[in-house]
Amino acid sequence: MSQLSLATKEIKTKNINKYKFMASKKQKTSLDTLRHSLAHVMALALKRLYGDVVYGVGPTTETGFYYDVLIKNLKDNSLSIEELPKIEEEMKKIINEGISFKKSIISLSEAKKLFKKLNQPLKLELLNDLEKYGTTDAEEILKMKESKKKPTKVVKTVSIYQTGDFIDLCRGPHVKNTKELPLSFKLIKVSGAYWRGNEKNQMLQRILGIAFETEKELNDYLNFLEEAKKRDHITLGQKLDLFHIDENIGPGLILWHPKGAMLKRIIENYALDEYLKNGYYLVNTPHIAQYKLWQISGHAGFYRESMFPPIHLNEINPEEKVDYQLKPMNCPFHILIYKNQIRSYKDLPLRYTELGTVYRYERSGTLHGLARVRGFTQDDAHIWCTPQQLDEEINNLIKLSFKILRHFGFDNFEVYLSTRPEKYVGTISNWNKATKALEKALKEEKIEYSIDKGGGAFYGPKIDIKLKDALGRSWQCTTIQVDFNLPQRFEMFYIDQKGKKQQPIMIHRALLGSIERFMAVLIEHYAGDFPFWLAPVQIMVLPVLEKHALYAQNIVKELKSLNYRVDIDLSEETLSKRIRNAELNKIPYILVIGDREMANNTISVRERGKGDLGAYSLDKFISELLQKGK
Amino acid sequence: MSQLSLATKEIKTKNINKYKFMASKKQKTSLDTLRHSLAHVMALALKRLYGDVVYGVGPTTETGFYYDVLIKNLKDNSLSIEELPKIEEEMKKIINEGISFKKSIISLSEAKKLFKKLNQPLKLELLNDLEKYGTTDAEEILKMKESKKKPTKVVKTVSIYQTGDFIDLCRGPHVKNTKELPLSFKLIKVSGAYWRGNEKNQMLQRILGIAFETEKELNDYLNFLEEAKKRDHITLGQKLDLFHIDENIGPGLILWHPKGAMLKRIIENYALDEYLKNGYYLVNTPHIAQYKLWQISGHAGFYRESMFPPIHLNEINPEEKVDYQLKPMNCPFHILIYKNQIRSYKDLPLRYTELGTVYRYERSGTLHGLARVRGFTQDDAHIWCTPQQLDEEINNLIKLSFKILRHFGFDNFEVYLSTRPEKYVGTISNWNKATKALEKALKEEKIEYSIDKGGGAFYGPKIDIKLKDALGRSWQCTTIQVDFNLPQRFEMFYIDQKGKKQQPIMIHRALLGSIERFMAVLIEHYAGDFPFWLAPVQIMVLPVLEKHALYAQNIVKELKSLNYRVDIDLSEETLSKRIRNAELNKIPYILVIGDREMANNTISVRERGKGDLGAYSLDKFISELLQKGK
Repeated sequence: MSQLSLATKEIKTKNINKYKFMASKKQKTSLDTLRHSLAHVMALALKRLYGDVVYGVGPTTETGFYYDVLIKNLKDNSLSIEELPKIEEEMKKIINEGISFKKSIISLSEAKKLFKKLNQPLKLELLNDLEKYGTTDAEEILKMKESKKKPTKVVKTVSIYQTGDFIDLCRGPHVKNTKELPLSFKLIKVSGAYWRGNEKNQMLQRILGIAFETEKELNDYLNFLEEAKKRDHITLGQKLDLFHIDENIGPGLILWHPKGAMLKRIIENYALDEYLKNGYYLVNTPHIAQYKLWQISGHAGFYRESMFPPIHLNEINPEEKVDYQLKPMNCPFHILIYKNQIRSYKDLPLRYTELGTVYRYERSGTLHGLARVRGFTQDDAHIWCTPQQLDEEINNLIKLSFKILRHFGFDNFEVYLSTRPEKYVGTISNWNKATKALEKALKEEKIEYSIDKGGGAFYGPKIDIKLKDALGRSWQCTTIQVDFNLPQRFEMFYIDQKGKKQQPIMIHRALLGSIERFMAVLIEHYAGDFPFWLAPVQIMVLPVLEKHALYAQNIVKELKSLNYRVDIDLSEETLSKRIRNAELNKIPYILVIGDREMANNTISVRERGKGDLGAYSLDKFISELLQKGK
Repeated sequence: MSQLSLATKEIKTKNINKYKFMASKKQKTSLDTLRHSLAHVMALALKRLYGDVVYGVGPTTETGFYYDVLIKNLKDNSLSIEELPKIEEEMKKIINEGISFKKSIISLSEAKKLFKKLNQPLKLELLNDLEKYGTTDAEEILKMKESKKKPTKVVKTVSIYQTGDFIDLCRGPHVKNTKELPLSFKLIKVSGAYWRGNEKNQMLQRILGIAFETEKELNDYLNFLEEAKKRDHITLGQKLDLFHIDENIGPGLILWHPKGAMLKRIIENYALDEYLKNGYYLVNTPHIAQYKLWQISGHAGFYRESMFPPIHLNEINPEEKVDYQLKPMNCPFHILIYKNQIRSYKDLPLRYTELGTVYRYERSGTLHGLARVRGFTQDDAHIWCTPQQLDEEINNLIKLSFKILRHFGFDNFEVYLSTRPEKYVGTISNWNKATKALEKALKEEKIEYSIDKGGGAFYGPKIDIKLKDALGRSWQCTTIQVDFNLPQRFEMFYIDQKGKKQQPIMIHRALLGSIERFMAVLIEHYAGDFPFWLAPVQIMVLPVLEKHALYAQNIVKELKSLNYRVDIDLSEETLSKRIRNAELNKIPYILVIGDREMANNTISVRERGKGDLGAYSLDKFISELLQKGK
């Protein structure tokens, strides 16, 4: 590996999903070496094909490798995707040539001379950092600069690897000879990447490859990529006319089109109705609050980087010297509703839920469709209870979570329980009580989980649930967090049986998490083929000719009165074109009405995935729908 | 009247409602003179009672009069409300004394000398302004200062009025003698008021009186005030635990408690479902957008004063030199969804609706409960259609508006149609078409309306509907506006039958207007006694003793499964206390479950306003509920 993989952090952020193609830990070591060696082979191939190349870093990824480079002899220094097969071919040639990887340990000053001679300014920059800070990690360096602390490590020597004409500053390990490398790799993408992941630096080109030990694994993964591409929620979002992101509004902000907004409403109403049935109370709070609220809550301190900057009211009225803050979370609002009355133990557990739209500042480079946005709606809730009630609350919460996630069609989960870290607030007794309650509930539901020891937040233990979608990819959704901190900061209390003030335990939980992100998962999981109860349009009615329109409209009316989401296509397109359109829009049922149907008082039913089901009476059709549920 | 009623603008803003106690135009002249003369009588009474008084202004209001004063001899210069009867008594004495009102015209310099001698600095300030600017109107003066224009009027003389020891700078007219004044007046309020309505100036005390020609009118109005006080939505909002406004969040921002949030959801869902049934499509858009959007829409220009200041993204990331704006309106967002596709005439009329929460900057002094806020949800919609479709669209819109308003229990309206002003955009033919369509639709619905000639916005004609509530007060709610401007600014088009680009006509409409404000109206109209379909809790179940709880919970379950909003009170309070609580919370039905009910498999039903209805089978009760509708 080149001395340090500076850009891997960014890659991880974008690669939101892990998937079944990720190697196990054991496999990883050897695969990593193969992939990393392939990165060097690619670097050599570039040098052979294009001559003057400036190299950045070339680490491995979870499925392959990349190298960030600047190819000087190309127009605009820009490599086009059409060149990739040529590079692959050259790499295969190099593999077959059986070139060895030679490692040398040299002094830092020798290394600097070498890479100066090789005309590699970026490698020189890394060497200078190693000399000055003992590391090339940009964050570590920044911290050192800020704290003015001296580096703890002193680097005197570095290792370099030579493969043919290509020499890299690199820690290794590598294979001994290119002959050991598999041919089961493929270059799949060229994209822009800032040097060291910093927008202020120059833009390099990242050439991304995938590599596996066998041809079969490679092909499986290529098929997976193909399938993932088909299911891509950004592409489907446009095809199915669900949403768009508009340059006049800004990145990470979603404009929901009619079908997307309807889908969102169905999801939100289903979740909210479930919560209301389960003893939650609906609340509703503004999207802004005075900045001082976030100082009380502590967000102004530890969360400031993720918040939009405040609104300075004095910019419109010099008399109003107060700042307002777009909310990144709903918690403080719900707490203020709790605090608006004196609460007794009889009022607990108290559960407030809100479909709260929050705004968080994310760097534009990290935004991704619906999956990573700047504004999103949470199916948020906060529960306050006594220590005695904690067990039952958490039990019910876990039950409800899985019930709801399963209702949406998921039954594969990855569950993480994070326990008390070294620094924490609250009593050990309450931490233990809460952690045990979380564990017990998972066991009762027969859910497998991993323990992230010491991985809890300072304010309490938590459970994170990741969904696995149809392609086996994991998506972080549900989070259940116990909080011993905010009740303290807001001086919350209830009056116990003895008339004394006690601090309630607080639970934050969002089951779907961000509705936007959850919708990304749903779209990709179902490839847009939403189950009947979720489909924004459930039934499309198609009168064959204009004379059938009236009869068709009566069918629409009858189905609408039963609260089905029905549309009618009265356009002048041919019937087959209209059927095709409805199919492209993945509408579960298409009803065709022509002469025969009118004469026999029937409808011709086509079901998605099943095709023509023949003639039905409307009653028979409705009774079939009833079995689908809502 | 004191030379100018500087503070009347503020009074009008707060007095959102006109009511039946407002005098007709004809009556107004004489009543105004009486009321204004009473203000002088009050001023004299204050002088007699407290000696050293600094006088501000003393105009009439729609129901009486006030004077803004500073009484120097009182502790903290502060008059308490307990003093009002004493002042009233003194006023009555003055009236009986038969003191005459003497008018004199004197030169401005004489007046200055006089009021200096009288120790009246505020009157002197007004005289200085008159001398310098020819007016005392603060806004006019500011404009003159900004434009550096010379005053158009030169004031050389002023009129003064003397009543006993009290001399006022005043335009008049007044009665000749205090004997002409009625005794049917009452002082009702003391409040703070900034001198000239400006927060930068000193705070005076406003002593507010009401006055009518007869004792009966006065008493009717006092009763009205009493009734209005009982129905005050701020008081009821607290009593019924619907919402609160929190000093940690900020003025004009509502925290909806469970019952309020539920009421809001019921209203919103009802309205939205109606719109969806009537061919509207739901959309959903963010609460912020880049500032440039508001430059395209024009809001950054003509609406800037009502907008919160922008969020400067570079405050968190110097690389992002872009400003974001909290949305004061939804229109531009909906337009961008329209524009995301090329629209054909076949797609029109296209109707987008959203429950869009918007934020507008209002001076904190003008905020009032739910009726005037800084953040509110609109049941907003935008319709685009061809000129040929305008007639039918408006017709349907007017029908739908009144259907929905009537469903909420209103059947008294004040309707205003505002027509083309001198400055306008769009073609006269389209203006005429739109105005005629609005008029025709009102006539067809047999709605009385007033025409506000030339009162339309520059961008199109409009209809405003005011609701009259149970006390006869009017509340602005519905607005329907044709807009020839935004389609032009956003270069919107559709492809017509001939394949040519045409500009669609745009209609903005909000039927309930601000949901928050509409809820203020509902609360005051019903005095919190919401009809069954709106009640946040419809049925309260009360088991007499613990042993009845299980049976009671089954009743709850059954009613909940039919989607009724049911609560159970399991507290240890006595039955009569729990009945009283449910009644105070204005819950439509109370079901009592004791031994007899369990034995006979019945429930005892109490209906709000009717009392005990006796024993019912659950089935009989449910069939009665079904008749109430939803």
